[in-house]
Amino acid sequence: MAKCNKEQNLKKAFGWAARDTSGVLSPFHFSRRHEIVGVVTEVGSEVKKLKVGDKVGVGCLVGACHSCDNCTNNLENYCPKVIFTYGATYHDGTPTQGGYSDVMVANEHFIIRIPDNLPLDTAAPLLCAGITVYSPLKYFELDKPGYHVGIVGLGGLGHLAVKFAKAMGIKVTVISTSPNKKKEAIENLGADSFLVSRDQHGMQAAIGTMDGIIDTVSAVHPLVPLISLLKSHGKLIMVGAPAKPLELPAMPLILGRKMVVGSCIGGMKETQEMIDFAGKHNVTSEIEVIPMDYVNTAMARLVKADLRYRFVIDVANTLKPSS
Amino acid sequence: MAKCNKEQNLKKAFGWAARDTSGVLSPFHFSRRHEIVGVVTEVGSEVKKLKVGDKVGVGCLVGACHSCDNCTNNLENYCPKVIFTYGATYHDGTPTQGGYSDVMVANEHFIIRIPDNLPLDTAAPLLCAGITVYSPLKYFELDKPGYHVGIVGLGGLGHLAVKFAKAMGIKVTVISTSPNKKKEAIENLGADSFLVSRDQHGMQAAIGTMDGIIDTVSAVHPLVPLISLLKSHGKLIMVGAPAKPLELPAMPLILGRKMVVGSCIGGMKETQEMIDFAGKHNVTSEIEVIPMDYVNTAMARLVKADLRYRFVIDVANTLKPSS
Repeated sequence: MAKCNKEQNLKKAFGWAARDTSGVLSPFHFSRRHEIVGVVTEVGSEVKKLKVGDKVGVGCLVGACHSCDNCTNNLENYCPKVIFTYGATYHDGTPTQGGYSDVMVANEHFIIRIPDNLPLDTAAPLLCAGITVYSPLKYFELDKPGYHVGIVGLGGLGHLAVKFAKAMGIKVTVISTSPNKKKEAIENLGADSFLVSRDQHGMQAAIGTMDGIIDTVSAVHPLVPLISLLKSHGKLIMVGAPAKPLELPAMPLILGRKMVVGSCIGGMKETQEMIDFAGKHNVTSEIEVIPMDYVNTAMARLVKADLRYRFVIDVANTLKPSS
Repeated sequence: MAKCNKEQNLKKAFGWAARDTSGVLSPFHFSRRHEIVGVVTEVGSEVKKLKVGDKVGVGCLVGACHSCDNCTNNLENYCPKVIFTYGATYHDGTPTQGGYSDVMVANEHFIIRIPDNLPLDTAAPLLCAGITVYSPLKYFELDKPGYHVGIVGLGGLGHLAVKFAKAMGIKVTVISTSPNKKKEAIENLGADSFLVSRDQHGMQAAIGTMDGIIDTVSAVHPLVPLISLLKSHGKLIMVGAPAKPLELPAMPLILGRKMVVGSCIGGMKETQEMIDFAGKHNVTSEIEVIPMDYVNTAMARLVKADLRYRFVIDVANTLKPSS
């Protein structure tokens, strides 16, 4: 990894990439400046915070303008000129190339130091899913002693939201459409209680009991039952992004000064705080490690939500250079 | 007016009331304990903060539980057992009787002292419309120097939102469907600028420029153009209540950590602060004073939005006791 502000630091790289709109990935040679978790192999002459051998990671961001109000407040994630790691281009038009490759080159500003006690594989998903749920818990001050938070949806984001919220010491209720996730939520992830969203009796009994809700669901779903679960001044935080608009009646918000708000990953400073917190409290992602050439099968399983809870590709040991 | 905690303080009263679901009001004799603006004529033996002759008012609230979290935080307006002044009943089941009558009896906790420099008639609407817009401007910290706030809809609520926001020293843009309200907004009410919501060019130019928006519109309307006007972390505050749900797409909220939130009048402490602020900055409502027997015509004009901006009934001089 190397500092590349001057944007001339090209490096030969090999990886897997989708070459057309089918979404099927295949081996791919390219030149890259920039991504995911690994060990520093090389640093640029102006790099200050990293040295060869450091355990590091790159999350969802590889660039920003560094001069807008958001950037100067450590909120590069909300910079209008933010550059995402995957499926994006740098300001000069070259593609960011994602992270399914043997090397990654990144500006040190976007590199996160991984605490020594965290394994690289189970830490990797924290850099996207982890910060996505950690940031709103902190920013909207849901981490106060005695607070009660609902987590809607128990997937990649949801299971980490449960782990982070419990590490913060607050009461957690998982809300899911699937009654069969109760054991997992409570026994494996440590949630305090479990609500089936279609169980009218259970939902009724929980009305007005939650200070906040992290809604990770990306399918269209009704908001009113969730808003009802909030105490007055409670916060419904959407981190999943349904493709179609949701229905929002005004009165339930007005009568309790309740809010519906979105949140998008986190800035670099907060991402480092998140992973340091994860190191301190041993918060890691549940993962399934797969080899590079399993990626297309994994994509198909993702669509069917057939995983627990994140795939991590072992690029270092399974990416075989082709001629 | 008199303290009535003991709930035995009945007083003969005469007023105008809707006697059936037609909504037509007619003269009405009744016994009342309680309500809008006037002068104290009588105080109970335990009353501490008021004396005969004081200029006072009663807003939207006449009762609450006084023991829940909201009540103990001076937010009686969000108390689950709140009693509204109009169209409601006390905890013992008797109707609150509203304020269209010769006398009003109220618990001193719900009585607001009107500053001497404010006329009773132009101050009266502040106790509902005024606090409805003042409270979110303060609570959501939109009153900071340099901030820019949009006010959607220029009616009873909207025109007071413009006046309060200007008195707080912030930049105000009125957003309206009616281009012919521009002169009124800028020249009479002091707004800094005016946007016609159907003017795509003007709306486009204002994208990402506002720290908050007070949305007073109670008709169904699109939220996305308003959300677009907000800076990241901006707040869209709904104080109008459309009868049907609005469409809320998640992505515009997520990408800018923007919030949609409701707000309902204010607590008694904040209502007193609001009217003291109004007294200091000479904020009053634009009104049309009408006699008691004009009330049904006024109701019909309200439905057509044919007023500028609040009717105030001169009960003291025009309510004629019938036999």
